[in-house]
Amino acid sequence: MVDVAEKSVAERVCVARGAVRMAAETLARIADGSVPKGDVLAVARIAGIQGAKRTHEWIPLCHLIPLDGVELDLVPDPAGSRVRIEARARAHARTGVEMEALVAVAVAGLTLYDMCKAIDRSMTLDAVHLVRKSGGKSGEWRRSDDPLDGTGRATD
Amino acid sequence: MVDVAEKSVAERVCVARGAVRMAAETLARIADGSVPKGDVLAVARIAGIQGAKRTHEWIPLCHLIPLDGVELDLVPDPAGSRVRIEARARAHARTGVEMEALVAVAVAGLTLYDMCKAIDRSMTLDAVHLVRKSGGKSGEWRRSDDPLDGTGRATD
Amino acid sequence: MVDVAEKSVAERVCVARGAVRMAAETLARIADGSVPKGDVLAVARIAGIQGAKRTHEWIPLCHLIPLDGVELDLVPDPAGSRVRIEARARAHARTGVEMEALVAVAVAGLTLYDMCKAIDRSMTLDAVHLVRKSGGKSGEWRRSDDPLDGTGRATD
Amino acid sequence: MVDVAEKSVAERVCVARGAVRMAAETLARIADGSVPKGDVLAVARIAGIQGAKRTHEWIPLCHLIPLDGVELDLVPDPAGSRVRIEARARAHARTGVEMEALVAVAVAGLTLYDMCKAIDRSMTLDAVHLVRKSGGKSGEWRRSDDPLDGTGRATD
Amino acid sequence: MVDVAEKSVAERVCVARGAVRMAAETLARIADGSVPKGDVLAVARIAGIQGAKRTHEWIPLCHLIPLDGVELDLVPDPAGSRVRIEARARAHARTGVEMEALVAVAVAGLTLYDMCKAIDRSMTLDAVHLVRKSGGKSGEWRRSDDPLDGTGRATD
Amino acid sequence: MVDVAEKSVAERVCVARGAVRMAAETLARIADGSVPKGDVLAVARIAGIQGAKRTHEWIPLCHLIPLDGVELDLVPDPAGSRVRIEARARAHARTGVEMEALVAVAVAGLTLYDMCKAIDRSMTLDAVHLVRKSGGKSGEWRRSDDPLDGTGRATD
Repeated sequence: MVDVAEKSVAERVCVARGAVRMAAETLARIADGSVPKGDVLAVARIAGIQGAKRTHEWIPLCHLIPLDGVELDLVPDPAGSRVRIEARARAHARTGVEMEALVAVAVAGLTLYDMCKAIDRSMTLDAVHLVRKSGGKSGEWRRSDDPLDGTGRATD
Repeated sequence: MVDVAEKSVAERVCVARGAVRMAAETLARIADGSVPKGDVLAVARIAGIQGAKRTHEWIPLCHLIPLDGVELDLVPDPAGSRVRIEARARAHARTGVEMEALVAVAVAGLTLYDMCKAIDRSMTLDAVHLVRKSGGKSGEWRRSDDPLDGTGRATD
Repeated sequence: MVDVAEKSVAERVCVARGAVRMAAETLARIADGSVPKGDVLAVARIAGIQGAKRTHEWIPLCHLIPLDGVELDLVPDPAGSRVRIEARARAHARTGVEMEALVAVAVAGLTLYDMCKAIDRSMTLDAVHLVRKSGGKSGEWRRSDDPLDGTGRATD
Repeated sequence: MVDVAEKSVAERVCVARGAVRMAAETLARIADGSVPKGDVLAVARIAGIQGAKRTHEWIPLCHLIPLDGVELDLVPDPAGSRVRIEARARAHARTGVEMEALVAVAVAGLTLYDMCKAIDRSMTLDAVHLVRKSGGKSGEWRRSDDPLDGTGRATD
Repeated sequence: MVDVAEKSVAERVCVARGAVRMAAETLARIADGSVPKGDVLAVARIAGIQGAKRTHEWIPLCHLIPLDGVELDLVPDPAGSRVRIEARARAHARTGVEMEALVAVAVAGLTLYDMCKAIDRSMTLDAVHLVRKSGGKSGEWRRSDDPLDGTGRATD
Repeated sequence: MVDVAEKSVAERVCVARGAVRMAAETLARIADGSVPKGDVLAVARIAGIQGAKRTHEWIPLCHLIPLDGVELDLVPDPAGSRVRIEARARAHARTGVEMEALVAVAVAGLTLYDMCKAIDRSMTLDAVHLVRKSGGKSGEWRRSDDPLDGTGRATD
């Protein structure tokens, strides 16, 4: 695990995104709340938050970072036949919270899979990526393309 | 959490796949072992196994299932500029191990991201999906297309 | 930890109950969904399920028991100015799941507190108790009084 | 999870209380150390401390807070046929430690149940509540009544 | 993680031992109960049990095994200026519980260190080893020498 | 858990050591990479790091300390027929990280056992001890003898 003792405490913010592609009918049932297991988006959002807090347990060389906050949005995207997921993680820490944001997206996406798998086993978690980070010595970084956009243009 | 008390114990096997896309140079450094954080593929493989064992902690409505085994392969795919990941989970249980296989792939993929993020922040975890499952009342299931194959054909 | 190796595997069911007392206005806001932190009852229900699965981590001498299912109901009770909580845990195991049901009630109740504490710090988690258990050598047991009923009569 | 990045780090102290009501004979056996599972109060005290440290795992929207300390007292109260439990949690943090104190009380109380359930299944965890908090923008708060006192008067 | 799906479920028992060497005065204070942090041996015993239940979290390639029981003895040995630790783990499982017994000894020993480190930082955890195992295809195994005995003879 | 609220935040470094003794042939197979379960030293190193991050879960009265770094070296020592393990833990905290360093050594050592137990069940985890600590009010401390050296002399 990289030693960050010499780095200074700074406010760090990271944003990650991804999507779960699925059959149009599955998306419709999520949107109208008729999935038997319950409110899919609400449960996935909670799962993503909980996962982010324990990132250091899943990712072997990640530091334990007490997060100031983590937010998740899960937005049905009927045009893309998918649910788009965005997570924002924030902390005062000696190292960044990229992994916390990425873990939040992945856990939320897989929870979505779990809640709907009885009706659609062919869902796919796609394009989990870091959108931007700020804070710390390396400063601001922003991804130049958008893996969620078929055209490859950045949209953020 | 779905009550599975009335289901019978059966041997369950699930296979999941995904990939981490990255710059060609990043992949080359993984392959030649020159990533500063260490043996990327070995650490990711261990992380995936450990993640699978604790799937019930990631995914709120998943049962705790004592796994008989979980295997992971992480294979550099220079043609696709990515590392392909496959996980196989196996258990004698009253319910399936789809989520265990998917979590293994996701944790391995994100660990790979973590190990290499200092040299390539634009890696993307892609196409995490269930390939096949067997065991239990619903029997054998196999996905008909292959999200990892640009042509959309099943390759398994 | 009591050695249960000589006990036989049996189907075990346990039911536990409790309540969170609060100001009438707090209860009204939970019921009409206007608590800023989100859908209080839904989050508490998920938290209770997750807590139950990890009972062996909180309670030092509890066995790890892979649960077949755990269900929670959280029902606003305006007459009592409280939310009533009931949890049912079920497993095929060598020992009972009393603690799993009780933990589910406690975690759900405290999550409810956490979600509403910004508007009401005087909520109280009350009367967490086992209602009944079945399965195993000691067979059926049912509590004779009801701590949630002011009259002390059993209502189940 | 509420974003606390803009809040300042302050010393936070929270006190919570509750009780486990039980048969007089059960209380007597706890007091004279004749419960087969061991030193009930000592184990429950340790369990409460351990639970408090992992509050963020129980309660979905709680921040992970590195505690400076947590203390528990478990005091037999023969007049009330119960064990009274008090927990005090303390941290330098951007948000309060109410949940840490409440979780400590609940875990200690349920552990007490677990240790004694073979001799008394009708024990009840009662009146888990926050007594006072200090630190942070909202400053000092003290509950005005005492749910552990039949008369409803504050005793702290 | 080795696939044990083809192995049959059998009753498995493993015994492990170790010791914590310390200054004679430290041992005397443990024995007379005057260590400020509390009842050292009782806390270490509980910690060992809890650690054993979560062996699969500490040891990457260990299976999650629901234990039937785990027992620990911590016995002051004034002649050796040490506390001897023995753990016995038992389960019906497809693979052995060697690691559960060893983890129990190690966690108990390190907890003992933690409880006493303010008075003696030079304590040493020594000779953590498997004494015997039974159950499963490889059958009974018993270590031929005793690392806790200066003479090197087996004493069990 | 000792209240450290009044202590000041300081940089803390702790170093711990231990060894796993084994048959010469086992050591040879670790060194030449022919153990069936994989790269023994690499997996043990990762396990030690992960264990250190969760020390507060192993050791009941340990504070949760967000570590700045933890490093492990596992070095085959053919002359001693053992693998020597050293762990260094570092944090800015109100209390020391002795236990984090010791837990890292123990988890790495036991993982080593687990990886090789199919070929050598008589391995022994030996001499887990604190070598030195710095930081905080008690300042620098260094152990005067070396339990890993048969002559009893300090070598660090």
